Amino acid sequence: MNSGTPERQLPVTERTRHRRLREQGSLDRDQLDAILDAGFICHLGVSFEETLMVVPTVYGSDGSTLYFHGSVASRSLIASPAATVCVAVTHVDGLVLARSVFEHGVNYRSAMIFGTPRLVTDPDEKLAGLRCLTEHATPGQWDYARRPSRKELAATALLALALDEASVKIRSGAPDDGDSEDAELGLWAGVLPLRATWGELEPDPLLPERIEAPAHLTKRVGTTAN
Amino acid sequence: MNSGTPERQLPVTERTRHRRLREQGSLDRDQLDAILDAGFICHLGVSFEETLMVVPTVYGSDGSTLYFHGSVASRSLIASPAATVCVAVTHVDGLVLARSVFEHGVNYRSAMIFGTPRLVTDPDEKLAGLRCLTEHATPGQWDYARRPSRKELAATALLALALDEASVKIRSGAPDDGDSEDAELGLWAGVLPLRATWGELEPDPLLPERIEAPAHLTKRVGTTAN
Repeated sequence: MNSGTPERQLPVTERTRHRRLREQGSLDRDQLDAILDAGFICHLGVSFEETLMVVPTVYGSDGSTLYFHGSVASRSLIASPAATVCVAVTHVDGLVLARSVFEHGVNYRSAMIFGTPRLVTDPDEKLAGLRCLTEHATPGQWDYARRPSRKELAATALLALALDEASVKIRSGAPDDGDSEDAELGLWAGVLPLRATWGELEPDPLLPERIEAPAHLTKRVGTTAN
Repeated sequence: MNSGTPERQLPVTERTRHRRLREQGSLDRDQLDAILDAGFICHLGVSFEETLMVVPTVYGSDGSTLYFHGSVASRSLIASPAATVCVAVTHVDGLVLARSVFEHGVNYRSAMIFGTPRLVTDPDEKLAGLRCLTEHATPGQWDYARRPSRKELAATALLALALDEASVKIRSGAPDDGDSEDAELGLWAGVLPLRATWGELEPDPLLPERIEAPAHLTKRVGTTAN
C-alpha cells in the first residue's frame, strides 16, 4: 500500500507505525488527501478533565492543515489546544461477506491524525479557515451565502491541526477465504457495497417559491458523496 | 427531545448532561436504540500508554450491551478493559444550507456512550456476543456462514460495554435563519440530504458461478442503510 513517492510519504512515528494488518496500512500522503477530500465529518477524540470524548464534527482540509470549529463555549474545543487529539475520518464502502464468520469484515478507507491543535486567533487566518471548512463541505457556498459578521466570528472557535502525523488504512475487494478449505462449503461470498449519495434538495418551507437553488447545489444531486 | 417515558430515560451524569444546544440533546433510550440499530460502525476512543486513539470498528447491540471485537493483538482493544472509553455512533443525514455561513450545519443522529468495557471470557457469552455483532451488521449471516472454530474464538477478543451511560444528539429539518433578517437576502436555503444505500452484490471472483446469493443478502440491495 505504500505506493507513494518518497517525498509524498508521511513520517513513521510511534503513534502511526502500523503494527497489525500491515497490508492495509499506508503512509502515502496522496491517499490521506483523497480520504480527507472525500468527506466532511470527522470524529475528534479529546480528553477534558479526565473524560475522554469522541465528538463528530465538520472539518475542512487544505492539504497541510485540518480545520475544525464550533462554539467558543464547547468543552471539547476548549480542551483541544491544550492536549494531543486524535482525529479519525472514515468512509465505509461495504460489508465483506466471507465463507466463515471469522473472515467477515468491512471495506473502508480511514485516516487517523494525531497532533495538538492550535486555536486560530489571527482574523485573516480565521476567515480563510472558515472558508476552507465551508468550501470543503459545499463548494461554491462561501461565495453564495452571507459571510460571518465580526460578532459571529467572535462566537466561533476555529482550530487548526497540522497534517504532519497521520496514518491511513484501507481495505477493498473480495473476502480472503476464497482459496481456503472453506471455499468447499459451497457458500456465497462477496461484498455488499455501501454507497453514500446526495439526494434531492429540500427547500426550507419558509423559502419563497421564486428563489431557485444555485447550480453549485443542484449539480450535486444524485452524485456520490464519498 | 426528551420525549421518552420516564422508565425509558437514560440517567443524567456529569458526562452525559447536555450543556449546549440542548434542543438537540436527548436521553431517550428508544432514540439511542434506534441510532445503534441503524448502524454497524462506531468510533471507539481509548487511551493507551498516554496516546489517545479513535478507532473505527464494527459493533453490535442487544439493547443493553454494546459488543465490539478485534484481534487479541490489537492495542486499542487490549487497553479498553482497563480504561474508560467513549464510543460514538454517527449518522450524517444532510447538509443544512442556510442564508448565512454562520447558520450552516449538518443534519445528523449521533450517540455517545461512556463506560469501561469488560473483556468477555465465558465461551457461551463470547459466542452470543459474536452472533450479536454478526447479525447486527448482516441479519441472517450467522446461520449462513461457517461459525468460529475454537482456534478462531481464541484469536478474537470480544468486549462488552454496558449501555448505561449514554447521550443522544439529533438535528433534523430546515436551517434556522428562515425568519431572520437574512431571509431578505433572497438566497436559496434548505437541506442537501445524504443517503446511504446498499449497492448490487459483488460476488467474490473466486466464487463458482452456480452459487447464488442467499435471500437475506439479495433483499438488502437498493435499501437504505441507515
